[in-house]
Amino acid sequence: MSLYAETFYTRELSELFEDRYAVSQLLRVEAALAMAQAKVGIIPEAAAKTIVDCCVVDAIDINALKNDVVLGGNVAIPLVKQLTKLIKNSDFEASKYVHLGATSQDIIDTATISTSKEYIEWLEVKLNSLETILIDLTKKHIDTIMMGRTLLQQAKPMTFGLKTAGWLESISRSKSRLYDLKSRLLCIQLGGAVGSGNTNITTDVQLVFAKLLGLSPSFPWQTQRDSLVEFASFLGILSGSLGKIAKDISLLMQTEVAEVFEGAAEGKGGSSTMPHKRNPVACALILSNAARTPGLISTMLSAMPQEHERSAGLWHTEWETLSQLMSLTAGSLEKAVDLIGNLEVDKERMLQNIEITNGLIYAEKVSFQLSKTLGKMQAHESVKKACKIATQQRRHLKEVVLEMHPQIENIDKLFQPKNAIGNSIIWVKNLLKAYS
Amino acid sequence: MSLYAETFYTRELSELFEDRYAVSQLLRVEAALAMAQAKVGIIPEAAAKTIVDCCVVDAIDINALKNDVVLGGNVAIPLVKQLTKLIKNSDFEASKYVHLGATSQDIIDTATISTSKEYIEWLEVKLNSLETILIDLTKKHIDTIMMGRTLLQQAKPMTFGLKTAGWLESISRSKSRLYDLKSRLLCIQLGGAVGSGNTNITTDVQLVFAKLLGLSPSFPWQTQRDSLVEFASFLGILSGSLGKIAKDISLLMQTEVAEVFEGAAEGKGGSSTMPHKRNPVACALILSNAARTPGLISTMLSAMPQEHERSAGLWHTEWETLSQLMSLTAGSLEKAVDLIGNLEVDKERMLQNIEITNGLIYAEKVSFQLSKTLGKMQAHESVKKACKIATQQRRHLKEVVLEMHPQIENIDKLFQPKNAIGNSIIWVKNLLKAYS
Amino acid sequence: MSLYAETFYTRELSELFEDRYAVSQLLRVEAALAMAQAKVGIIPEAAAKTIVDCCVVDAIDINALKNDVVLGGNVAIPLVKQLTKLIKNSDFEASKYVHLGATSQDIIDTATISTSKEYIEWLEVKLNSLETILIDLTKKHIDTIMMGRTLLQQAKPMTFGLKTAGWLESISRSKSRLYDLKSRLLCIQLGGAVGSGNTNITTDVQLVFAKLLGLSPSFPWQTQRDSLVEFASFLGILSGSLGKIAKDISLLMQTEVAEVFEGAAEGKGGSSTMPHKRNPVACALILSNAARTPGLISTMLSAMPQEHERSAGLWHTEWETLSQLMSLTAGSLEKAVDLIGNLEVDKERMLQNIEITNGLIYAEKVSFQLSKTLGKMQAHESVKKACKIATQQRRHLKEVVLEMHPQIENIDKLFQPKNAIGNSIIWVKNLLKAYS
Amino acid sequence: MSLYAETFYTRELSELFEDRYAVSQLLRVEAALAMAQAKVGIIPEAAAKTIVDCCVVDAIDINALKNDVVLGGNVAIPLVKQLTKLIKNSDFEASKYVHLGATSQDIIDTATISTSKEYIEWLEVKLNSLETILIDLTKKHIDTIMMGRTLLQQAKPMTFGLKTAGWLESISRSKSRLYDLKSRLLCIQLGGAVGSGNTNITTDVQLVFAKLLGLSPSFPWQTQRDSLVEFASFLGILSGSLGKIAKDISLLMQTEVAEVFEGAAEGKGGSSTMPHKRNPVACALILSNAARTPGLISTMLSAMPQEHERSAGLWHTEWETLSQLMSLTAGSLEKAVDLIGNLEVDKERMLQNIEITNGLIYAEKVSFQLSKTLGKMQAHESVKKACKIATQQRRHLKEVVLEMHPQIENIDKLFQPKNAIGNSIIWVKNLLKAYS
Repeated sequence: MSLYAETFYTRELSELFEDRYAVSQLLRVEAALAMAQAKVGIIPEAAAKTIVDCCVVDAIDINALKNDVVLGGNVAIPLVKQLTKLIKNSDFEASKYVHLGATSQDIIDTATISTSKEYIEWLEVKLNSLETILIDLTKKHIDTIMMGRTLLQQAKPMTFGLKTAGWLESISRSKSRLYDLKSRLLCIQLGGAVGSGNTNITTDVQLVFAKLLGLSPSFPWQTQRDSLVEFASFLGILSGSLGKIAKDISLLMQTEVAEVFEGAAEGKGGSSTMPHKRNPVACALILSNAARTPGLISTMLSAMPQEHERSAGLWHTEWETLSQLMSLTAGSLEKAVDLIGNLEVDKERMLQNIEITNGLIYAEKVSFQLSKTLGKMQAHESVKKACKIATQQRRHLKEVVLEMHPQIENIDKLFQPKNAIGNSIIWVKNLLKAYS
Repeated sequence: MSLYAETFYTRELSELFEDRYAVSQLLRVEAALAMAQAKVGIIPEAAAKTIVDCCVVDAIDINALKNDVVLGGNVAIPLVKQLTKLIKNSDFEASKYVHLGATSQDIIDTATISTSKEYIEWLEVKLNSLETILIDLTKKHIDTIMMGRTLLQQAKPMTFGLKTAGWLESISRSKSRLYDLKSRLLCIQLGGAVGSGNTNITTDVQLVFAKLLGLSPSFPWQTQRDSLVEFASFLGILSGSLGKIAKDISLLMQTEVAEVFEGAAEGKGGSSTMPHKRNPVACALILSNAARTPGLISTMLSAMPQEHERSAGLWHTEWETLSQLMSLTAGSLEKAVDLIGNLEVDKERMLQNIEITNGLIYAEKVSFQLSKTLGKMQAHESVKKACKIATQQRRHLKEVVLEMHPQIENIDKLFQPKNAIGNSIIWVKNLLKAYS
Repeated sequence: MSLYAETFYTRELSELFEDRYAVSQLLRVEAALAMAQAKVGIIPEAAAKTIVDCCVVDAIDINALKNDVVLGGNVAIPLVKQLTKLIKNSDFEASKYVHLGATSQDIIDTATISTSKEYIEWLEVKLNSLETILIDLTKKHIDTIMMGRTLLQQAKPMTFGLKTAGWLESISRSKSRLYDLKSRLLCIQLGGAVGSGNTNITTDVQLVFAKLLGLSPSFPWQTQRDSLVEFASFLGILSGSLGKIAKDISLLMQTEVAEVFEGAAEGKGGSSTMPHKRNPVACALILSNAARTPGLISTMLSAMPQEHERSAGLWHTEWETLSQLMSLTAGSLEKAVDLIGNLEVDKERMLQNIEITNGLIYAEKVSFQLSKTLGKMQAHESVKKACKIATQQRRHLKEVVLEMHPQIENIDKLFQPKNAIGNSIIWVKNLLKAYS
Repeated sequence: MSLYAETFYTRELSELFEDRYAVSQLLRVEAALAMAQAKVGIIPEAAAKTIVDCCVVDAIDINALKNDVVLGGNVAIPLVKQLTKLIKNSDFEASKYVHLGATSQDIIDTATISTSKEYIEWLEVKLNSLETILIDLTKKHIDTIMMGRTLLQQAKPMTFGLKTAGWLESISRSKSRLYDLKSRLLCIQLGGAVGSGNTNITTDVQLVFAKLLGLSPSFPWQTQRDSLVEFASFLGILSGSLGKIAKDISLLMQTEVAEVFEGAAEGKGGSSTMPHKRNPVACALILSNAARTPGLISTMLSAMPQEHERSAGLWHTEWETLSQLMSLTAGSLEKAVDLIGNLEVDKERMLQNIEITNGLIYAEKVSFQLSKTLGKMQAHESVKKACKIATQQRRHLKEVVLEMHPQIENIDKLFQPKNAIGNSIIWVKNLLKAYS
């Protein structure tokens, strides 16, 4: 439902997923094939020139194309028909050389890779932005103290910088993953009907064709979809990492927690009936995308055991699926850049929330301290008891512990947030060195 | 990628999945709410009339709507804004009563159910057609003998009618499944902000609202998505059953098998480079859809644990996912009706294929016969040996068996296809009675 | 990893998923086949008696069985071998009649259905328990006031009974779903090699066989897996509904919310390092199961397009997958019964949490009230402004509203929780009538 | 169901997935922690020695462990309890230092990585074997002519070596993928309760701990699961590539194709009722595994948005899921090594199958030839017509073409398989250079 075109996706890439763009990529690949065959001496230069000149999207009747796809089951068949007709009109001789020796899958797969290349270039820019924003956020909050939480319970204090450093690391690993997969992914597919080539599809043609498209040459991979699925998985992992960030923010934005907020914007996050609400709208959309990508990746994986030299269905399975994965992940990434770049952090509330358990969250600290004299197990048990008393009598844990262990040393220090954040600051400081 | 709009989907329902239709359903729901509130005496009749009059899709600026969705995260918010503005222009008083007491989710969920209702009506017609076609096909081939195959190996003869009766049964069970789920699915959602109702959303309003929309009244189910997921699962199961049929046909259409074919149509199933091929194009598309639905259903299931009274993301997850499930399944169903209605069956080739193993496929029959005197295990072993000899020496199994067991009775009968089809005919005959 | 045998699953059903049970079900089916064939006069009564007597799990060498499965790819093949050998030892004649006319799939599929039947009986008892517990909980908290929350934000007050009534409805619909699917699922599979039957597998044999096993007779469905997948989907939907309940409880148990708690048990929910924590352990396990079931269901759906009369792989896909779905769902259900049956509810804290926004959550109420004079849009805007002021100046909304709209009537009433819960009580009361 | 332990999985790794091994890895991690803390001077050397001495799996009551897991929700809690008790018995002082400063997740995650390391070492050996086998097979069949098939239709001739070279490439890319991910995956997790470290979990402790375990040090990643999911995706992609190979073999093994066979083994692939069948059992199991992995990977991806510093459920989701992915993929890999290493290829039958279409499969060649004079479109149409005639009149295409185009040159050459395989041989020859 395109009603949500702006909601889950990014406007910046909307063209990339439109019919016009898809057709123009296919034409670009057909043009490159003709040029390569001319350069190698298989077809006349003049014919190649005519073909290239005719490979313009505006000359194609896209609606007719859509109607005809269903007959052959893929878009290359009717496109080559339209194109040949066009060329025949201007140069009968040239029309003999369109799509020469190639098969539909050569064109469609190579166009997919070419689109992926363009997409990846956009993605890399955004990933770098996000990384920079996260580095800045982490620096800014390197000593912002907040509660760490496990199993949705307050656990012990840490810093907000420690949290954002974890986010940063995941994004940085996605960058490294993308770097690694590019050499496997960004390869042409050109092999003719069954991938064996022929007199018109030779090694030399492959080399020139690849160069013209800015891709690597490759042994035909028409039913070996592993690199495409690796790309899909990469997208899903990135969507998942963004989802983790959105999950944290949405939880921290809860009315009862209120430590971190999506940046305000006119009209953003409002409820139709509850004017006071400040909804985590960007988080919801990123989380929604992260919930949709896993199923799409399982689809891509399911489609791997393709029959023989071209599948009867599983190849078709990938087309819209990969496209959706790409647009959902791009949508999440753009929203994440905006979300994290405009995050509002309430440091004061973070400190207040540390106090709401009447000192219970310092229990581990107390336990460590007591374990020096009592041993770990006994200290653990004693503190557990103290916690129970503090809870039942609504007293502060410090008071209860002092009563139970009057000889305990430096108890005030134990109950200060800044003494409870462990190595948060030093660890993040060290980590940031790797990013400078 | 809408290039494939005609490929995976059905033109008959294309409107149902367009923005205009989605918006008009939302408006229909807003109108029904106003009418219900007027009938119950909560808002003035005149105001309701104005609201209803303004609830026309042509008055809505859909592009503006798309832009604004992202701010609030759902389409109802900007739609209500536009609608209220529209009404205000013609009747300020009436504008106070738009969307009164309702929440975005009430409108969107009820519109989804209303769309599902219309979709189901289409589906039921198609399912009935398919059932009729399958009954006719089964009758026609009740005694058409063919090989049964297990693990992609020829096993023993059966009839084509037995195979199509299996297809028929699966479709018939899908009809029964659909019948069962309708009472759970086709219910309004109307509960206000948190599902508790209010002075403007009362039991009486719910009853009238439901009646106006042709749906059942219901306790609010805004974060209880089980019936929607049941519907999604139903769609996936139907897509899977159609995929099973397409799988069989595509395998039977293999060049080396060549028993059954998709009906020919001008330009259909042609290859761009291999003019002799007759590709299982419809099968490929149905199989492709059957490969895409499982991941979408896992997405719907994953989105079930929605937080509190409305989820921060998982509700959004469903919108496009359910829509895709509906369109993919409709596409498969329409293609299946066409595919099965125009199936070409080569009975002669079916009989020829039974002979290609030099009688090996009668081994089980021989084994049964011999077991009467030798016991099952020994008969099995003996026949296994005979099969080995027949294979190695390229002789007919009958000959080898006769040599090994000269006393065997009625051996000719054992090697006749019509004696090897078990109860195929009688079982199918009995089954068809249930459909008459 | 069976380390988690007690963690994700239920001890009550552990036997049902053990090898011994699986083998004994297979033997039970072989025995039923022999008995049916004897009753119909196909094999001697005495032989059937011997076969039945030998069909005891203790006589089977399960380890040898496991080793041999891999050769034939399914467990029925080596089991029939062992069984036949056993019988041969005691009665050579009888050994001829073991597994007569049947195929591996007949035995394995029918055993799966028979196991499902037993499983469903357990499930129905548990579902009834859970329903009863939910009815009681709902009655008890019919007027317990709490915050309703949307998008993880406080929205407006409602009752805890309204929330639990939603839970109840979803469980009740699962019961109705289970009731509906049983007639499709609980059917024998008995058709011989390709589902065509033979002289030893006749309609009469099917009827007696079905009756002996307490199942319905059926046309062979060996590669029509729709009813099995429907069962799988049902399990996933139930797991998802339980996940929704666990999600709510885990969020309500957050340190900062603290309204509802898992019942305490010695050693339960403790952290190894933070003695004060009260972790939502049961919720975490139910949520974990709900996160695992969707992928398994997509696997079941993916396995539907099975080839011809038996699949080369997709049938095998179902075995462990369905088994895992059954055990995960049973685990969740048992944990849910315990979790909800022992839930601790802090009504006082629920009321306190309503107050933490300084009246902001009454904004909708105020907006409704003001809309009577100002119209909906203007009222909405005015209240939005009041909310902003209240937030910035940390004042109570009531105060701000009074300042802005001194003429507003009955403002105290607007800010009382009990006046803000809409129809929560009456709707739940009406709903409960359907369960009495 | 462990009945299938030998069927889907590999015996070689069965220990790796047993409770004993899991517990021993956890103990190994606890031991490494104590040693690291001693080396750094945090705990006494003597205490560390005692702890290490007590970290033996035989001292642990695994059944008690299983029972206790459910209380805390993870296995580290009861294990540390048992271990502490054990140590206390022999050295009270040492017992204070067990698990010091660590959290359950540190131990469990690091043990998972350590297990993955061992698993990967096994995998690399097997991948190398498979690669070698595929290189040999490709060399052997570099000029074995067979039909290439697209959409399950005969398309045009190629070589079997071209097909196996495609298999080889996919496996080789999986090796490269594995190489790339190891640096991201094989890292310790050690951060204490919320990942902030503490006086007992310092940078120095991390460094020594990592070194002792043969892993890399790392910033805590407890709720950043991207590298684990990358590993899962890698496994799924490998399973998918193996599935593609199995798919090809199972199709080529069809009775009607009969070109390639699984190696025979006593009792392997037999049917219980059809002694003549030679089932693709290994293929079926590999395909079954390839159908099960996608859903499990979607589960891993779904579990990425983990809350705060430890998730309430999604962490738990991974445990058995990753374990299953690892064992399924290992099972497939082992089976594939055996399957491909023992493949039987019927070259003669491959040649025969090329002839079954009466020359139709040379249509593309003819079309190319004719296009030199007629242009591509017209040639295509003419050949299409010739094919139709040949089919209807059951004549050889060569004859029909000669009739229609008597002037055509060198027609005999066009109809020779070896002239129709394009660049199959040279491309494979070039490719193999990269592997030598």
